[in-house]
Amino acid sequence: MSTTGTIHGVGLGPGDPDLMSVRAHRLLKSAKHVAFFRKAGRKGQARQIVEGILPDTVIEFPMEYPVTTEIPLSDPRYNQALSTFYEEVTQHLIGLAKSGDDVVVLCEGDPFFYGSFMHLYARLRDVVPVEVVPAITGMSGAWTATETPITWGDDVLTVLMATLDETKLTHHIAETDALVVMKIGTNFEKVVRALKAAGRFDDAWIVQYATMPKQNVIKLSEMTEDVTPYFSIIVVHGQGRRP
Amino acid sequence: MSTTGTIHGVGLGPGDPDLMSVRAHRLLKSAKHVAFFRKAGRKGQARQIVEGILPDTVIEFPMEYPVTTEIPLSDPRYNQALSTFYEEVTQHLIGLAKSGDDVVVLCEGDPFFYGSFMHLYARLRDVVPVEVVPAITGMSGAWTATETPITWGDDVLTVLMATLDETKLTHHIAETDALVVMKIGTNFEKVVRALKAAGRFDDAWIVQYATMPKQNVIKLSEMTEDVTPYFSIIVVHGQGRRP
Repeated sequence: MSTTGTIHGVGLGPGDPDLMSVRAHRLLKSAKHVAFFRKAGRKGQARQIVEGILPDTVIEFPMEYPVTTEIPLSDPRYNQALSTFYEEVTQHLIGLAKSGDDVVVLCEGDPFFYGSFMHLYARLRDVVPVEVVPAITGMSGAWTATETPITWGDDVLTVLMATLDETKLTHHIAETDALVVMKIGTNFEKVVRALKAAGRFDDAWIVQYATMPKQNVIKLSEMTEDVTPYFSIIVVHGQGRRP
Repeated sequence: MSTTGTIHGVGLGPGDPDLMSVRAHRLLKSAKHVAFFRKAGRKGQARQIVEGILPDTVIEFPMEYPVTTEIPLSDPRYNQALSTFYEEVTQHLIGLAKSGDDVVVLCEGDPFFYGSFMHLYARLRDVVPVEVVPAITGMSGAWTATETPITWGDDVLTVLMATLDETKLTHHIAETDALVVMKIGTNFEKVVRALKAAGRFDDAWIVQYATMPKQNVIKLSEMTEDVTPYFSIIVVHGQGRRP
């Protein structure tokens, strides 16, 4: 009788493979199965990060999102489609674990910080053994790329998703010292308006593809395009106590 | 004529050496000089994390804080003593770099996230080459230890230092979805009062020594002591959208 395998939710960090943890690297090098999210028709960002690290014999399980931006978040069909999808891939992972195999689930950034893996974790944790390997967040990659510390002394740091409504964005931006805004993509112009309304636009930087070959760091006020890739993070640095 | 060396500010992550990045590990294994902060008379937390990784030949430069909690933060002598200290150790590091040597400065957590290294960075960056290696934050280590994701969907995450005054703490705690409070130590009872006033005390967890051998994770409401070590992080998880 085989022992139940473990599902490892492994954070890969912000994008540069050199920034994954020693533990993540070791798990990847000896992985029998890897699972990873991707948009249909794409290679998948997480899978690209580990290119060249996985053994040749690894068995891959791409988990393709049924929807991304085709249905608005507010439409109940969005949640329904995702819920069915998460349920299906969870059953596949449980099957592998019950057959005695370990599985590495590739997670961009840190698995417990706004990650898709959390939706699998919630469904797996009471059924099979699950281990989570934390990682460097995309936002750490972004503020490091600005070559300026994000928080000093007693600075308050607020992390906002650009999917919030404009009133909430403006309110929270006005109340914080240091700021990170993620999930920008199509919400870019709304975030710009909120930053301006809160009086922080001139202090904001945008980091595209942090730690990746296409990395681009620019003050928001000097940006000429009005579109930005999904992998963009806006940063406003704190100005706290510094002896 | 020798080339100027580089000062590497290397984040070590939350404490478990297995959670440092591949890049950090490689820099440590080949380090000629390491510098690290510590309290006088202590080994130093950062130095302990890298025990067994540094080469035997490494030259160590302990940077001992002239004050920690003996002088209150609000006393101008506190800033003055620290400022003189940072200036002195910076001059030593510049000397090493100008003689052509690279130096690894050990940083607990992520160097640009409330770290002491930032005070050296601000003094070094225009004088000698400085490179920063981001790392897994202590807070990522803490929320992973709670075995519960910190943020879902559009959750707002606020990071607060327990050194803030009680009114500010209460205000920001009441406004956020997910919460991290750091630098707890002697501010523990103040944070507890602020959490209660903001109605979040019953949802709070405290993680002591996250990812380290002495790790302890407990609901704040079940804690029996009224003291907690400096390496404690309070976490309140977000409850956002989860298909």
